[in-house]
Amino acid sequence: MAFPAEIDKQVFALGDFPLESGVTLPDAKIAYVTLGTPNHDGSNAVLLPSWYCGDYTGYEFLIGEDKALNPDEYFIVLTEMFANGASSSPSNTPPPYDRGNFPRIAIRDNVRAAHRLLTTQLGITHLKAVIGFSMGAQQAFQWAVSYPDFLDGVVASCGTAKTYPHGVARLESAISTLKADAAFQDGNYSAFPEKGFTAWAQHWCAWMFSQEWYRQELFKANYESLDALLHDLSFWQTRDANDLISHAMTWQQHNVGTTEGFDGDHEKALRSIVAKVLYLPGQTDLYFPIGDVDYEAQFISRLEYTPIPSIWGHTAGGGSNPDDSDFFNRHLRAFMAQLP
Amino acid sequence: MAFPAEIDKQVFALGDFPLESGVTLPDAKIAYVTLGTPNHDGSNAVLLPSWYCGDYTGYEFLIGEDKALNPDEYFIVLTEMFANGASSSPSNTPPPYDRGNFPRIAIRDNVRAAHRLLTTQLGITHLKAVIGFSMGAQQAFQWAVSYPDFLDGVVASCGTAKTYPHGVARLESAISTLKADAAFQDGNYSAFPEKGFTAWAQHWCAWMFSQEWYRQELFKANYESLDALLHDLSFWQTRDANDLISHAMTWQQHNVGTTEGFDGDHEKALRSIVAKVLYLPGQTDLYFPIGDVDYEAQFISRLEYTPIPSIWGHTAGGGSNPDDSDFFNRHLRAFMAQLP
Repeated sequence: MAFPAEIDKQVFALGDFPLESGVTLPDAKIAYVTLGTPNHDGSNAVLLPSWYCGDYTGYEFLIGEDKALNPDEYFIVLTEMFANGASSSPSNTPPPYDRGNFPRIAIRDNVRAAHRLLTTQLGITHLKAVIGFSMGAQQAFQWAVSYPDFLDGVVASCGTAKTYPHGVARLESAISTLKADAAFQDGNYSAFPEKGFTAWAQHWCAWMFSQEWYRQELFKANYESLDALLHDLSFWQTRDANDLISHAMTWQQHNVGTTEGFDGDHEKALRSIVAKVLYLPGQTDLYFPIGDVDYEAQFISRLEYTPIPSIWGHTAGGGSNPDDSDFFNRHLRAFMAQLP
Repeated sequence: MAFPAEIDKQVFALGDFPLESGVTLPDAKIAYVTLGTPNHDGSNAVLLPSWYCGDYTGYEFLIGEDKALNPDEYFIVLTEMFANGASSSPSNTPPPYDRGNFPRIAIRDNVRAAHRLLTTQLGITHLKAVIGFSMGAQQAFQWAVSYPDFLDGVVASCGTAKTYPHGVARLESAISTLKADAAFQDGNYSAFPEKGFTAWAQHWCAWMFSQEWYRQELFKANYESLDALLHDLSFWQTRDANDLISHAMTWQQHNVGTTEGFDGDHEKALRSIVAKVLYLPGQTDLYFPIGDVDYEAQFISRLEYTPIPSIWGHTAGGGSNPDDSDFFNRHLRAFMAQLP
């Protein structure tokens, strides 16, 4: 346990927060945690933005005395994305923006909110690195495009700078599983839409790990049988369907190219990145496949490209497997040492 | 058009057909087509069993004067699987085995039915080859295990001899999309369960092609936009949900190792194959990934292993892309020439 038991999750009030969609979200907030202390010249701050369905605890595998990010050395800021249930979300926002009426959130909205937290609340004007897994990686790339002078390094594991059409299709197929259940009631459900969630859970099961992981039956470490895995809804039972859909839509629409000034051109946006980039794709990631990463890598000028040799699919970069986490820590430690 | 316009689909009556599940299916039937003429020594017969949701027309890309299988040279038998809507299926079987009550069908049931068709109806006692794509490949491998003396060659494109746990999980996630829709009514639907089918269609979209195919936007050859692809239900609107689920369950449970005499050991069953095997996996197939094929290949003694270099995902081996079909035809022609 890297995190102290008495850790305190903070909430940063953003007030009326204008979103990229054009809607202003009243009384917006983001949840966050800090670990460690900013040093005198402000050169030890790192930001780790949360991922899909995640919270600050997700990055524990990178944090600790024996890990790449030692809180004795770094000032570590862990932010939680809109729609994760703690930051402003469909499930915790009052009308008229509650539930299915929650406005569309962009990755850039999350990045802008975290920028405001850092600069106005925490007094941070420079980051050594933004480090992210999955949608956290999307945020890390966006930081480098939106605020090129603010950071020295980007660390992106199992996540790309744009969601390509397959990701859009895959996520749409997930969203449609919940909508297929009449109990979902267009987001106004009164009970957990269990049949929709069964299909939803199985969707994520099949995409999350590699086919090789399944063939080797690595699920048997945690489940008696494949069937038990496919019918375990426990993770989802505490989640809110509208939050999940909002989050998925944020993922679907992401594109660094649609940042102001880049005319929708993601190659141009990637070429604009001046930060040093540590790219850690998962060799068997079905969400952000290595082919998409290879494609993006050609546009990034200061790149360390280190695929995680793993059959753990998308989860390789998210702390699910000790060997992969060691790999991540080892490369992250070396990368951090090279930054100014 | 390789097939003559006046082609006649035949139906072979199996009578009361005992299934591997223990149930006897009354008045069972399989649909089939033949092309060409058996030669004097009976050495020119080939069998092409249909695939998921397919019928005899699926193999047209391999058949014709300019294709690997010329009906002037070969006697070509095209069988259609149980549950495809023409052979005995949930949608065309009377009570008590109609709709959701249709018994579980094994790949071996299909193989046994085709064996009976060949031997009792068509007078064929030997096949030059069984050639199959996807679930057709599953049948081809099963032929080689069940009837080792009956055939000289197996041609398996984009399909393995066993469904590994990922395939089970993926197919379960598909089945659950239909079950999530209350209109499905446990198989007793009166109207097309449209919401379930929307999630179902999107499931297949996302799995069928590779992520690279999507990134290169190859869907634009047939659709105005990704959204148009994701909301095109036309292919499914003419299908019966119970047929589709029955078919998927056949796929899920397949394992050459559970053939009598092999004690569930698929490696042993693969080692028993004496036929020459042309294995044509799709390099980017997400259903039957190349890793599973590599794994099986090590147990097959007389093997020609030729991955299809394609970004068309699973469909590479099914005639969806002219370059891939040329590749298949070229290798199939050369392989057939090597058989006795």
